[in-house]
Amino acid sequence: MGALATRLLVDKGAQIVGAIGRSPDKVGRDLGEVAGLDRRLGIAVEANAAEVLARGADIAVVCVGSYLATMRPHFALCLDHGVNVVTIEEETVFPWTTAQEDSKALDALAKANGVTLAASGAQDVFWLNLVATLLGASHRIEAVVGRCVWNVDDYGPEVARHLHIGRPEVEFDRHVATFGWPEFVARQTLEALVSRLGMTVASTSSDVTPVVASDPIYCRSLGVELKAGEVMGTIDRTVIDTREGARFELSMEGRLYREGETDDNQWDVFGEPRLSLRNAGVPYRFTTCSTMVNRIPDVVAAPPGLLSLDEMPVPSYKRELRVSQPD
Amino acid sequence: MGALATRLLVDKGAQIVGAIGRSPDKVGRDLGEVAGLDRRLGIAVEANAAEVLARGADIAVVCVGSYLATMRPHFALCLDHGVNVVTIEEETVFPWTTAQEDSKALDALAKANGVTLAASGAQDVFWLNLVATLLGASHRIEAVVGRCVWNVDDYGPEVARHLHIGRPEVEFDRHVATFGWPEFVARQTLEALVSRLGMTVASTSSDVTPVVASDPIYCRSLGVELKAGEVMGTIDRTVIDTREGARFELSMEGRLYREGETDDNQWDVFGEPRLSLRNAGVPYRFTTCSTMVNRIPDVVAAPPGLLSLDEMPVPSYKRELRVSQPD
Repeated sequence: MGALATRLLVDKGAQIVGAIGRSPDKVGRDLGEVAGLDRRLGIAVEANAAEVLARGADIAVVCVGSYLATMRPHFALCLDHGVNVVTIEEETVFPWTTAQEDSKALDALAKANGVTLAASGAQDVFWLNLVATLLGASHRIEAVVGRCVWNVDDYGPEVARHLHIGRPEVEFDRHVATFGWPEFVARQTLEALVSRLGMTVASTSSDVTPVVASDPIYCRSLGVELKAGEVMGTIDRTVIDTREGARFELSMEGRLYREGETDDNQWDVFGEPRLSLRNAGVPYRFTTCSTMVNRIPDVVAAPPGLLSLDEMPVPSYKRELRVSQPD
Repeated sequence: MGALATRLLVDKGAQIVGAIGRSPDKVGRDLGEVAGLDRRLGIAVEANAAEVLARGADIAVVCVGSYLATMRPHFALCLDHGVNVVTIEEETVFPWTTAQEDSKALDALAKANGVTLAASGAQDVFWLNLVATLLGASHRIEAVVGRCVWNVDDYGPEVARHLHIGRPEVEFDRHVATFGWPEFVARQTLEALVSRLGMTVASTSSDVTPVVASDPIYCRSLGVELKAGEVMGTIDRTVIDTREGARFELSMEGRLYREGETDDNQWDVFGEPRLSLRNAGVPYRFTTCSTMVNRIPDVVAAPPGLLSLDEMPVPSYKRELRVSQPD
């Protein structure tokens, strides 16, 4: 994701002033080379984040991690240096209930330093703002039901292992029964949507269902062929009931694809009138990066603090990034 | 449309303080009865608009006419009385190029009276704001192409006659060759979109193509059976090229439906990445009213003037209308 974000930033004329990496096979090399661009950028990847941040920047683009607890020290380091942060880390989309202490601390730190921390990604456009905009045509909402399908193989071996891809179904069920299953971005996105609509959460429930291979299927990111009966994905579902009576549901089906399958986004609104929205073939991986890059001027212009997505303006296309002029 | 809007206003708790009508079979009767509600509202339909407006109101909901030149005196009367206006009149969506003098005069009048005039309708959500939000995920836009289909029979005999429904194709072609064809809401909506994106119109072209019946088809609003070869609808298309290079195109196909057909909204974004959006079965007639009703608090809260839709905030769901408290 960092490599793709780098290419999009360069395309849009962002002035990149530093690059931070951890992997020994990246540190010391030119960012253009590490990101697979066809030219050098004259920016070396550095391991010491504090040194890079101390040189100053309008914003840090942070493309690591999915939970706020793990990301807190990284975000804190940026904010401490007076650098705004935009990230694809999913919990920051609406961290107030699932990461209360971390989000309050980061909000206070951002305010103390006069900078902003905000998350974006495909969910910003496809699961929050398109849906909220569609509801602008609704007279009465009974239920809002979303279903998206994403390709596990788009996100590398770490995500595939996190979803237990290739494990026997019985083992998956035993794992969930024993350890539970962490809530994923479906919950945060729905909470942001409910908050944007000015509604109040009455109850929330989340569950996970394994998607089991009925025929052998190849997992590119793990380099293994799955047998029938093994887990080829999961459906993470969150349901929120509101005090106002409307119900919100989002099922995220992340799995391996067979030939010709593409990402999908479908929302149905029950009530008066019946409404629907579909983005067929929505490229979630790419649009996670492109939406985040389009968000940069919004984050720089936003008031200080940790801003959940319901507090941000509607996302918009940015033809060029001119956050600040080079000296 | 006025009857449907009345029902939605009552549903959402709006305090209706007056009703204005012209037709002798409506004037003097109770609004609830005229709107086909199952109860009286205690508000008589009155013919003298100035008298009703002089009693004061937060906003006037104006559901007549499709062009600003015809509507100017009606809007002016509301604004002169210090009453905000929301309307489904289509040109006001973006009137600055096609109705320059009328829009400037109304903008000045609204400002002088400290009130706002704005249009809304299905295009607000489905052709402007959903599309602009989708483009928040776009890295590079080459072309944005929309195609919508709407049912002529949803809008009564006046609209059917305006589209030459039931006339022979050769007669339609002769009419367009002789008199031209007025630009419809496709142009205004695209201009609002281009403006919202911060782009500049380089050139605009509009054309119309008749949709000709290949088999007999019944026109409900005119009460006639069309023969093969007669006009059963039109495709109004506007294409805008921008100085920034991106092209915008919207085709509005208004025609008679055969059994089982429904309204449709489809947008394709060419560039990087390829994006699409579809609202299958979108009920344009209903959502024109429901979106306008949801807009009421936005219009009341907006700064004074004529605000085209690109200048309005993103539309949003309103559970209740509490524009002002009753005394």
